[in-house]
Amino acid sequence: MKIVSQNFAHGGVQGVYTIDSTFCQCEMTFAVYLPPQAKDGPCPVLWYLSGLTCNHSNVMDKGEYRKMAAELGLIIVCPDTSPRGDGVPDELTNWQMGKGAGFYLNATEEPWSQYYQMESHIMDELPKVIKDHFPVDMDRQGVFGHSMGGHGALTLALKNPDTFKSCTAFAPIAQPMTADWSRPALEAYLGPDESKWRAYDATALIEDGAKFSEILVDQGEADNFLENGLRPWLLEEACKTAGIPLTLRMHPNYDHSYFFISSFMDDHLKWHKERL
Amino acid sequence: MKIVSQNFAHGGVQGVYTIDSTFCQCEMTFAVYLPPQAKDGPCPVLWYLSGLTCNHSNVMDKGEYRKMAAELGLIIVCPDTSPRGDGVPDELTNWQMGKGAGFYLNATEEPWSQYYQMESHIMDELPKVIKDHFPVDMDRQGVFGHSMGGHGALTLALKNPDTFKSCTAFAPIAQPMTADWSRPALEAYLGPDESKWRAYDATALIEDGAKFSEILVDQGEADNFLENGLRPWLLEEACKTAGIPLTLRMHPNYDHSYFFISSFMDDHLKWHKERL
Repeated sequence: MKIVSQNFAHGGVQGVYTIDSTFCQCEMTFAVYLPPQAKDGPCPVLWYLSGLTCNHSNVMDKGEYRKMAAELGLIIVCPDTSPRGDGVPDELTNWQMGKGAGFYLNATEEPWSQYYQMESHIMDELPKVIKDHFPVDMDRQGVFGHSMGGHGALTLALKNPDTFKSCTAFAPIAQPMTADWSRPALEAYLGPDESKWRAYDATALIEDGAKFSEILVDQGEADNFLENGLRPWLLEEACKTAGIPLTLRMHPNYDHSYFFISSFMDDHLKWHKERL
Repeated sequence: MKIVSQNFAHGGVQGVYTIDSTFCQCEMTFAVYLPPQAKDGPCPVLWYLSGLTCNHSNVMDKGEYRKMAAELGLIIVCPDTSPRGDGVPDELTNWQMGKGAGFYLNATEEPWSQYYQMESHIMDELPKVIKDHFPVDMDRQGVFGHSMGGHGALTLALKNPDTFKSCTAFAPIAQPMTADWSRPALEAYLGPDESKWRAYDATALIEDGAKFSEILVDQGEADNFLENGLRPWLLEEACKTAGIPLTLRMHPNYDHSYFFISSFMDDHLKWHKERL
């Protein structure tokens, strides 16, 4: 692990680090915030997964998570959203595919499969690095995210309820299999057999029997992507049928931006802390 | 005034606006955060002046001021740091001069004087726009800023104690007349007669008799610019001699970044609210 930067913030340390990723076949960057409590012993760790076009830095700059994380003693890990570098396949004119759009899955189709192994990067590779280098209590992990990262948080939590004790999302893509902005990516990464997409779709996972203790979702009503891209009511319906407790909060006037995320960040951190 | 963007945030509205500036002879951009209380009547207004290389957006993105401003009912105005546009003189390879480095002064020397009238832009032009378009109580104004903007906040407050009821600064340039990174700019903007620089130097203003009720300064001890560029002890000495109450807080480990600013933002907002 290489240190890119470390800045003192709210009594803790906001760091940016890189590793040579075996799964993504490139150098992968991630941010870690250590609260002041990390000096005294292991802290619970909360994974934040970002949305389309973002990397590790957007939420680090605009998410406003440090003050409350410092108060609650939470370590916040913010991975990147895709492999990076000149050799990595991309669609330069399409922000919904390729770099910045890894969708937290393991691609099976060429040319993506060699690099786009984000699920393994996040679930297998990064946790080992985090465990080796930071004072984390790996028995107390939560996951949350925004938009594509909300999809990532929901699907990874539903598939790994023993790893993640808590899960929340800001404006998640509730059903990527049927949303215009994610269907093409799923097909490109996973091939035409839609049955294989179900492992990367929160509502499909729930329909197929996945369970989670409790989920919080915040959604802005002025979000331009609400009707076609996000559709939290599909998650609500699936959770209701499956008996998964979902707290879905609709917020008038809020859009899809970090202004929305940061407005409810403290609520999410408190939610996780209470369950970790 | 044109609206560039408006986003709901922490129950209020973070806006970005432009005006055609008479003083700066160009379109000038600024950010205004309206807290929820602004719906019900006039609120006090706090001017945040940014540092070298910044524009209105840096503190808007990274300053973490909205949550506390919403709690306290403060309107936050964030102007740009210089004139902008293709026609505006600049020194492209020098970040301490020209665009992004207006030093909150009115230039008297060619070619700068036609555009670089930042003091008038902030003290005369923008207040009228703010007063006309937002529910502000102009009898309750405070000013704060970072680095070059801390210099701006101190000098404007010292020169306008009837306008500003409160003044704080993060890592301000205490004595720009004698600091390596600001002397060349003062000479270029104001000419070689150093007596004319004294109106734009907080310690010189205090030596020359300017007064202010009370000042708060936060400074990181790991700030790379501390020894040569910032030197808060010069301000401390001047305030002590003049009998101006200064609270200077030195913070181990903190650097010059927005990670530092955001860590103490709440303290500054509370300081201003108590005095406005």
